Formats: sequence, C-alpha cells, structure tokens
Amino acid sequence: MEGAHPSILEKISRINFEKNPGYGDDPYSAAAADKIRAACGCPDADVTFLVGGTQTNDTIIDALLQSYQGVISPETGHINCHEAGAIEHSGHKVLGIGHRQGKISAEELENYLSVFYSDANHDHMIQPGMVYISHPTEYGTLYKKSELEQIHSICKKYGIALFLDGARLGYGLMAEGTDVTLRDIARLTDVFYIGGTKVGALFGEAVVFTGISMPRHMLTIKKQHGGLLAKGFLLGAQFDVLFTDDLYFKISENAIKCAMQLKKLFISKGYRLFIDSSTNQQFIIMPDAKLKELEGKVTYSFWEKYDAHNTVVRFATSWATTPEYVQSLEQYL
Amino acid sequence: MEGAHPSILEKISRINFEKNPGYGDDPYSAAAADKIRAACGCPDADVTFLVGGTQTNDTIIDALLQSYQGVISPETGHINCHEAGAIEHSGHKVLGIGHRQGKISAEELENYLSVFYSDANHDHMIQPGMVYISHPTEYGTLYKKSELEQIHSICKKYGIALFLDGARLGYGLMAEGTDVTLRDIARLTDVFYIGGTKVGALFGEAVVFTGISMPRHMLTIKKQHGGLLAKGFLLGAQFDVLFTDDLYFKISENAIKCAMQLKKLFISKGYRLFIDSSTNQQFIIMPDAKLKELEGKVTYSFWEKYDAHNTVVRFATSWATTPEYVQSLEQYL
Amino acid sequence: MEGAHPSILEKISRINFEKNPGYGDDPYSAAAADKIRAACGCPDADVTFLVGGTQTNDTIIDALLQSYQGVISPETGHINCHEAGAIEHSGHKVLGIGHRQGKISAEELENYLSVFYSDANHDHMIQPGMVYISHPTEYGTLYKKSELEQIHSICKKYGIALFLDGARLGYGLMAEGTDVTLRDIARLTDVFYIGGTKVGALFGEAVVFTGISMPRHMLTIKKQHGGLLAKGFLLGAQFDVLFTDDLYFKISENAIKCAMQLKKLFISKGYRLFIDSSTNQQFIIMPDAKLKELEGKVTYSFWEKYDAHNTVVRFATSWATTPEYVQSLEQYL
Amino acid sequence: MEGAHPSILEKISRINFEKNPGYGDDPYSAAAADKIRAACGCPDADVTFLVGGTQTNDTIIDALLQSYQGVISPETGHINCHEAGAIEHSGHKVLGIGHRQGKISAEELENYLSVFYSDANHDHMIQPGMVYISHPTEYGTLYKKSELEQIHSICKKYGIALFLDGARLGYGLMAEGTDVTLRDIARLTDVFYIGGTKVGALFGEAVVFTGISMPRHMLTIKKQHGGLLAKGFLLGAQFDVLFTDDLYFKISENAIKCAMQLKKLFISKGYRLFIDSSTNQQFIIMPDAKLKELEGKVTYSFWEKYDAHNTVVRFATSWATTPEYVQSLEQYL
Repeated sequence: MEGAHPSILEKISRINFEKNPGYGDDPYSAAAADKIRAACGCPDADVTFLVGGTQTNDTIIDALLQSYQGVISPETGHINCHEAGAIEHSGHKVLGIGHRQGKISAEELENYLSVFYSDANHDHMIQPGMVYISHPTEYGTLYKKSELEQIHSICKKYGIALFLDGARLGYGLMAEGTDVTLRDIARLTDVFYIGGTKVGALFGEAVVFTGISMPRHMLTIKKQHGGLLAKGFLLGAQFDVLFTDDLYFKISENAIKCAMQLKKLFISKGYRLFIDSSTNQQFIIMPDAKLKELEGKVTYSFWEKYDAHNTVVRFATSWATTPEYVQSLEQYL
Repeated sequence: MEGAHPSILEKISRINFEKNPGYGDDPYSAAAADKIRAACGCPDADVTFLVGGTQTNDTIIDALLQSYQGVISPETGHINCHEAGAIEHSGHKVLGIGHRQGKISAEELENYLSVFYSDANHDHMIQPGMVYISHPTEYGTLYKKSELEQIHSICKKYGIALFLDGARLGYGLMAEGTDVTLRDIARLTDVFYIGGTKVGALFGEAVVFTGISMPRHMLTIKKQHGGLLAKGFLLGAQFDVLFTDDLYFKISENAIKCAMQLKKLFISKGYRLFIDSSTNQQFIIMPDAKLKELEGKVTYSFWEKYDAHNTVVRFATSWATTPEYVQSLEQYL
Repeated sequence: MEGAHPSILEKISRINFEKNPGYGDDPYSAAAADKIRAACGCPDADVTFLVGGTQTNDTIIDALLQSYQGVISPETGHINCHEAGAIEHSGHKVLGIGHRQGKISAEELENYLSVFYSDANHDHMIQPGMVYISHPTEYGTLYKKSELEQIHSICKKYGIALFLDGARLGYGLMAEGTDVTLRDIARLTDVFYIGGTKVGALFGEAVVFTGISMPRHMLTIKKQHGGLLAKGFLLGAQFDVLFTDDLYFKISENAIKCAMQLKKLFISKGYRLFIDSSTNQQFIIMPDAKLKELEGKVTYSFWEKYDAHNTVVRFATSWATTPEYVQSLEQYL
Repeated sequence: MEGAHPSILEKISRINFEKNPGYGDDPYSAAAADKIRAACGCPDADVTFLVGGTQTNDTIIDALLQSYQGVISPETGHINCHEAGAIEHSGHKVLGIGHRQGKISAEELENYLSVFYSDANHDHMIQPGMVYISHPTEYGTLYKKSELEQIHSICKKYGIALFLDGARLGYGLMAEGTDVTLRDIARLTDVFYIGGTKVGALFGEAVVFTGISMPRHMLTIKKQHGGLLAKGFLLGAQFDVLFTDDLYFKISENAIKCAMQLKKLFISKGYRLFIDSSTNQQFIIMPDAKLKELEGKVTYSFWEKYDAHNTVVRFATSWATTPEYVQSLEQYL
C-alpha cells in the first residue's frame, strides 16, 4: 500500500519547523475538528483523533462501556475477528450475533436484546452496552439508510450506544447507489470514526461523538491505551487537509471508480463474484490453478476457501489506484 | 438448594478447634489430594482447590493461557454465557464454536483449528490456546468415551490443552449408560475439575492436572484472582470426606436415580422432553398455561422459550433429593 | 487457625436441609443485612457479602473506580503489598503514599491530592478516585476518631470515596482506648467491610455502603470477579449469627483480652515491642537465637528483620484464643 | 515541538507511491533493523518498531512478564508516573523503589530483591519479573557504565530481565562526559529501545532485544495493544534514515550543544540549577515572580514547586534547536 495523498505530505513538510504543542492541543487539530463538525452537520460534536483502527475501537469501546458490559458485533466484525483480542485485553466481551455479508439486521439485534432481558439469569451474563457495526463492512457491503434508522431505533429503545467503525468510510459514502451520507451517519449513530489510514492519510482516525458526549478524561484514556500521539498535530494536519475542498470525498470516489472498473474486468473475463460489492473491496472466486499461475505477478489478499478447487480472493482499490494500474491486470486474467 | 452432606458438616465441626495452617497447606488438603489422585489413577497429578466454578474456570484458564491466546468453547459453554465475562475480565477471548446440545465434535474442532492455521491473517487473530468442554454439559448431555478420545487427539495434534469443567462431574460419571469413568476423564484431558459445590459440598472445586503440570506460583495466581481461601482446610476437609468410601459417587448416584424417576413422571403425564438427558438436569417442554398454574407451588429454572405457547424449564435433582420429594410433584402435573 | 464460632456451625447445620435460593437471595442474607444496618445506625445502607478479603478489596475497588482512576493507599496497605496484584489485575493502579505504622494522615493525603491537581501534566497520570485505609491497619494500629474525621473531610473536599478495609474490624472496635465505634466507621467512610473470616466466621466479609450507594449490577460484578458464592445463604447465616446478641463484639473482646495478656507476658520477660499495639496483633522484637530455640515449639509469623541479630515476629490472638493457651507460652520465653 | 528531520520527510515523500507490504513486513523495516543491529554490535538482536513511548513500555512489559509478575521501577519512572496507568491496564503492578535524581542503585535493587525472597509471605506478593530504568532518566541524569554493569549483574543473579527505556537515548549517548555507548547499552540490558519520537522522527521507537529473544507472536501482541501500525514501512523508513551516516548521533549532539549553551546562559544570569544535567533537559529554579514576567514570551514545562516562592521549570532542546534560538532567550532572563 502507498503512503499518503501528496497534499498531506506537503502540509506536513510545510509546518515541520513550527513549534506546535503536543498531544493534540494544536491549531491544526482544532481546525480539522471544525471542518469535520461542519461536514457532519453537527456543530456540537466532540472530535478526537487516534492513530489506527484497532486502537480506536479498543479505546472508544473501553471508554464507553462499564466493566460488566460487552459490545454486540456481527460475528464477522473486525473487533471480533481481526484485532488480536484487543477488546478482551481491555476486559470486555464481544457478543457476536448473526450477520448477512457482514451486516446485522435490526430484527436480529432486537431479538438478541429481548432474549437477553427476558432471560431470568441475565444477571449472570455480560450486559450488552453498545452495538458495533462497520460501514462499509469487512465484506465491502453497505447499510441502507432505512437499515441504519431501524438499528438506531432499536439502540435508542434499549438505551445502548451505536458505534460505527468507519475505517473505510469514504469508500462507503462514495459508493454507487448508496443512500447514506456523512450527515446520516452522524445523525444515526452515537459515535463513529472517519478512517484516514485507508483513505489518503499516512495514519489516523477521526472519532466523532454525535449522539453522546465524549467521555471525560479522554486524553488520559487514550494515553492508558497507548494511543496518545506525542505529535498530535500530525493527526490534525492530515484531517485538516482531507476535509479541505472535499479531498476526502474526491479521493474516495477515485477508489470506487477503479473498483467498478476492476469488477467489470473480472466479470468480462468470466470470473464469478463472491459478493457483489459496490465499494473498494472486490471479492472474486478464482480457481486455485489460476491463482498458482498468478504467483509472482499479481498480489491479492486470501479471503477464504470457496470449495476444494476455488478460493475467494480480495482485491482492494484506494485513493492511490489509477485506471492504468487496474487495466494492467487484464493481461494476467 | 441445600447445604452439604451431613458427614461434611460433621467433619468440619470435628476439626473446628484444631489450629490448622492457612491457604491450603494443611493435612486435610493433602489427604484429599491423595485420595483424588488415587481415584483418578494418576499418582503424579497436581491437585489444587478453589471455592466456586466461575472462579475456577477464570483462574485455570488465565493461568494456562498466554496473553495472546483464547479458549475454544462450545457457544453454549458456561464460560461463554453465564460467567459475567470473567474470562474476558482476565483478558482472554472465548472462541465460541458450534455445538449439539452443549457438546462440540472433534470434526468441528479440527475444522476450526485448521481454518485458523490456514488463514494467512491469523497473526491478527487470537490464537486458540485451550479447549474448554463441560461434562455433563449445560444441557445435561454427556460425551462418549470415543468422543473424548477424538477431541483429546485433536488437541494433542495441535498442541493445545484440553480443560474439562466438571462442576457436575459426579452426576455425569454415575449417569445411566455412560461409558466414561473418572480415570477416563483423567487420561483424556490435561486438566479438569471435580465439582463439589453442586455435589455434596458447601462449596469447593478440586482441580486436577493430569496431562500437564500445574503452573508454577499457583498460590499467587489464585490470590490474584480473589480465589485463595484463607481457611483452605475447609476445602481439603470437604473433599477428604467426599473421596472417602466413595461418598462422592454414592451421592451422585442418588441424584441420578431421582432424576430418572422425575423424567418418567413427566413422560407418564404426557410432557415432552426438550432433551433426553441421562443426568441430574431434566429439560421439560411445558405449556405456559400449566406453568402459570404451578406458580407458588413448584419452583423450576426458566431455560428458554420453546415457542409462542410453551417454555423449556429445567428441574435438577441433587445428592439431597429424595424419592418422596420427587413423588410429591405428581399432584401438580 | 481455627474454623468458626460454634454457634455458626450450629446454625449452618440447622438450616442444612432447607431449600434456600442461591446467590444471596435468601432470608438469612436479608436478616443479616438488617442487623448490620441496625448496628451501623444506617437504615438505608446497602449491604452485600463476599467470601474473602482480597476478593472484597478487588471487587469493590473495581466496581467503584473508572478505568482511568486509581486508589490511594498507605504504602503498607494490604492491597499494595499482600494481594498478589489483584487490584492491578483488574486494571487499577495503587497509588502508595507515606504512612506511620500503617496509617496515613490527612495532611499527607491532602498534600498528595493538591500536588496532583496542581501538576500541569496530571492528565498523563492516573487520577486518584478513592482512598483505601484499613482499621486496624496491617500493623495493628488504629485511627482515632478525629483522624478519621479529617481524612473523611479531605475525601469529601476532593470528591473521592473513602473505603475502609475492616478485615479485622471487630478487633479494632473492641481495642482498649479506642474512641471509634461501628457507627463512627459507618458515618466517616463511604464504604467499608466487616471482616468475618478473621473474626469468628468460616469465611465471609460484609460490605456496607453508607456514604454512597452500592453500584448497580453488583451481582454481575461479583460473578465477574469470581466472588459470587452459589450458596450465598452460608454468608448470610454466618453474619446473621455474628450480629445476633452482639456476638461479633463479644468474641472480638476476647481476642483483645488475650492480646493484652500476651503483650504483658512478653514485656514481663524483657522483650521489646516493635509497635505498641492495642489490637489482636502483637509485634515483638526477638533475638534470632531465641527464635531458633522456639523452633518446633511455638509458631509465629515472620514480620521483618529488625537488625542483624533480631527479628520482628507477629503473634495474633483471635475469637478462639484462651487465656490458658496464652499462658502456656510462658514456659518457652 | 517540531516534526521530523528533513531527510526523514524527504524519504517518506520519495517512497510514497511505492506499494509496500503492511505491518512492518517491508524492505525499509528490514534495512533499519540491520543498521540498528550493526550500530549495537549485535548481529543476532531482534528488532521491532512501535509508534510511541507509552505504547512501547506497555507492550514490551506485558509481552515479557507472566501474569503474577510486576516490574521494578524507580518511583519517578515514566511507567510509574506519567503513563496513565497503561502498565496496570495490562494487569501488571509497577513496583516502585527509591531513586536518586531518577536513577536506581544496584544496592537498592539488590536489597529489594533479597528482602522479597527472604519474606516468608512472598507468595502473596507480586513477584518482580523485570527491572525498568530509563537513560537518560526523567531528570535528565545518566547512568555510568559501572552502574549499569552492577545493575545488570544483579538482574542476572536474580534471573530477571533488564529493560531500558531509551525514549531520549540519543541525548544520553551524546552527553558530555558519559562513558556509556550504544554498544554498552546493548550489552548491559536484555531489551531496550531507541527513541525516535523525541530524536528526529515524526514518531517511532525501535525495540532491540539483545540479552533475550523477542517473544513469539510479537505481531499479535502489538496488535492486541493497539500498537501495530498498518503502514509499518513509515517506521522502518524513518529509522533507516536515522541510522544512515550516523544521523541519529549527529542530531542528538546538536541538542546537547544547545543544552550546554542554555545551561551556561542560565548560570550566567544567576539562576540556580535544580539538577546539573548533561543531557538535553535542563531544570532551572526560577522565582515565581520571574515566571510571571515570562508569560506570553517564553514557554517551558512546569516541573515541580521548589518552595513557596520558587518553581523548578524544565527547558528541553532537541535535534531541531538552533544556537540562535537559545540565544534569543537571553533578552528575557
């Protein structure tokens, strides 16, 4: 993967010799927060920055849950599968529920909560204190606005927070056919984050508290979780650039265009899609023999075995992908 | 529920004014450990005592796992559902896998492990470091000897410990038709515990390390988990009595006889079994209207809703149940 | 050490075959709580029971602190020295401050708190969220009422809870010359516990919330910490007996009388006191040569080396000690 | 504070569009590790990179300690005071011992260890499993080679690891009069880290295992602690630059020269030193009235109150400080 959008590097170089206060108490962080609040249509939102996705999930979940509470997540959720037990390391159980291509449904969520509270033994069980979803999901799928509204409504009914992992948020917001905007996300969740690491930044995630306030002592909590960056202005400066002149959205759109080009290319070559994804991640079913042929020529992510002779592999585009680069894949397919 | 078998209370009263050393370093604990080793056919086993089931599961699992390891458990396992997140409080993830009436199969276990190790991203995931099963399970079901052999063999193949929760072990060993003995348990697991709390003691669980050694500094680890009983001789004395003249087995047998009587009673009255259990827990499907009728007359445990008009309820017998007591239920059914 | 006061064993035997609900939801626990509330003069206090001291300290501290908070303790506090890191296992830092024979002073406490809040970097530090003291202390010393009032007042000023570890509380309340009563303890702390394990019970500590409410979901929190006793009525029954007819105070008084007899005996034989303790623990400076002589005849607790040729040893009396037993020591001194 | 040495920014810009593997499995990380091994004279050392100091301390300490072990630290150690309880959040106790201007002595260390092991109750206590020191210390002081040799020797004798926090290591190595080289550090500790955040990098710490091997599954452990940087090549590239042509040492030397200039300036103006530091941190005793005068003109770090009318303040130079900048301070003093 590449580094960062060139305008971010330019900004960092430009301010390199300024003497900025540490730990996020700098003008760039303040400016970035302002621009994010404006983009979200939430003038009162609290905004804070962290370095990476797992760190953000761990820190926010631990900051918001009581010790006897856990977080509901689709079984395929990143926090449940691919974060090396960071949530449990902070003492919280991830309560996995069923999913469809990475998405949970309001029905399944309500069912889980109503079974929990009707269970006479629920005092012996971890209490659900938060719902975690990702958008796009780990499978590249997206919630519809109506689905988010329903999930949000169930969370309100049961008095638990809805947390949205937006590590790839830009690619979801710019996907073809989505009816979900950043303002919808801000309105329909209690806290979410705007991923920078995968969308143009060197690193960084911007956490936005809309439905609830940021917990007090967030700086202390971040430090305790090893997530307080000394030169916090590096985070602020990056998001300041990303949220100037819609850069975040424009570079996300580039990834989507390249992903659609990629999808068409695979389909035109007769490959089957494992999931028909409208975001930057494409999941293709490929014969193992073909994969062998590609060795040393093309890199991809292993996703899972499809059957005895086929494998699901993942190709992801990004802000940095070019149409020429996608096209260059054709010769090998 | 009742207190303890009378011979246990007699023993405690008899030794009440002796000045015994604290923290388990007393002759009764030593004698109990010897008798348990003999009953298990494992002269070299390490034996240690704890107060309750959740405490035991938490302490043993945390003592044996590395920080980056989790414990595989059937999704219905006690550690996964009814221990208020004690395992996660100690930092470990419970890795739930599919079950059939509370039991896991060697096939499913091997599948989980082989998928884990063939996943190119498994360094981002919690590593399975132990397998947890219960016998009897939370559903009153039992493993066959051949099933334990297969599970044990998969654990050996992958180099992970097999831990058996025997909170109700006596009731499993004395169940009708079981081919699993205490010696089999000792041979086919790495560590297990013999439940006292539910089988005749005031409280107490005896942990037996057979396939692996007890971790060093076990006393410190127990203290850290709040499980070091100051008057440890109370644990030793109770297990000393339970493992003298086969008392543990005799009182377990009583529970089984009463449970079979209970099962027949329900069947004779036309009730359906939710699970055909051969142990002390019986799961009956009862019309909600009937349950309403029983209010104030009969107590039972809510298990789960069966359908819109029926509920699964649990009746459990114990070392203290009498045939007359079971019979007295008939008038209400 | 001995088991329990005979009237406790009688009570447990008497109710042994009753079918009591589990987990503390039984009439004996309710009755014990009522009697404790009456003895404390706090009709609205919340009362809950746990099995042992370390478990109680860990559970209460973790239940009351936020994740970014720690607990101030004298450096010699039990939680700081002799609980195998149980507090840290639950994620909290123990903030040790200076002491005088196990006691902290209001001055030192206020100094700590004012330095903390005047430190411009205190967001990078663990915030003090509670003060832990023990009474009697680990050195057998006692707070005066005026000292407790001052400490309580500092805690109020800074808005942090005062938690008193009363593992040996009876021996403090019945000490010669003390001006602190149980009602004072209840009035001058936010939460404290009445030790049963060391004062007549087989095991058990009664936690009393007076200045603050018991946290919600206490049963879940206890279970998570491995401290929820299945047969909770055993705890209730014991404290029911201890708080009937002032038994708790009477048996504590016995220990004090024997301790004073013991102290006089040592003084009369020319030994020096390490601390002039008015409670059940006596700390004697003994020549190493003498200790060698006592081997196999007298048992004592090693406390610490006094100098190259002398050692401080601890002798403790209890509810079960008799004057004859103390007297029998004379022949060896 | 400033960003990074310009040659680091150039490097990051130069490689920005390369498609590097994530999570540290890239050629720049490999090259940086090789250069660090060479600089340490340890061809077999394991090297790994993390983002910040607290994160590094937490991750390494948790990776190396057993659950029942704690880490000995000077009471003023960064892990004990200014890391918001990150070590305790991972479950480990920090065992504070006495210090002299931030340094521990071999005598005090050996005393602590011998008292611990001679205490008959040490099974109830957290076992010391590691010694943490920093060089330079939080007070800007340095160990002499002979002091490190003695501390190292005590650690060897007791079989515990010696971990050196080198967040400011370059400034220690280039200090006037020090007899400790990077090779000495590598030889006399088991694991240490070379600070990048404070010494020329945007962020990053390079952990070097010399006396012991890196724990297995380090990537998983890093991820669990929220410290696995997705674009790990950013860490590699920065240390690759810092360890090319001795850049790390040259820029550290600049900080020292400016610090000595600063010290002379203060002395020449009649100020007293709180500590006579030979490293980049200078601690000056300043009248509160003077500090008031400086408001809005000069920034400094509050260190501690010296007395009723004077305050200790800290001035720190860095790789980016210029002699002109130091000189510009004169007008205000």
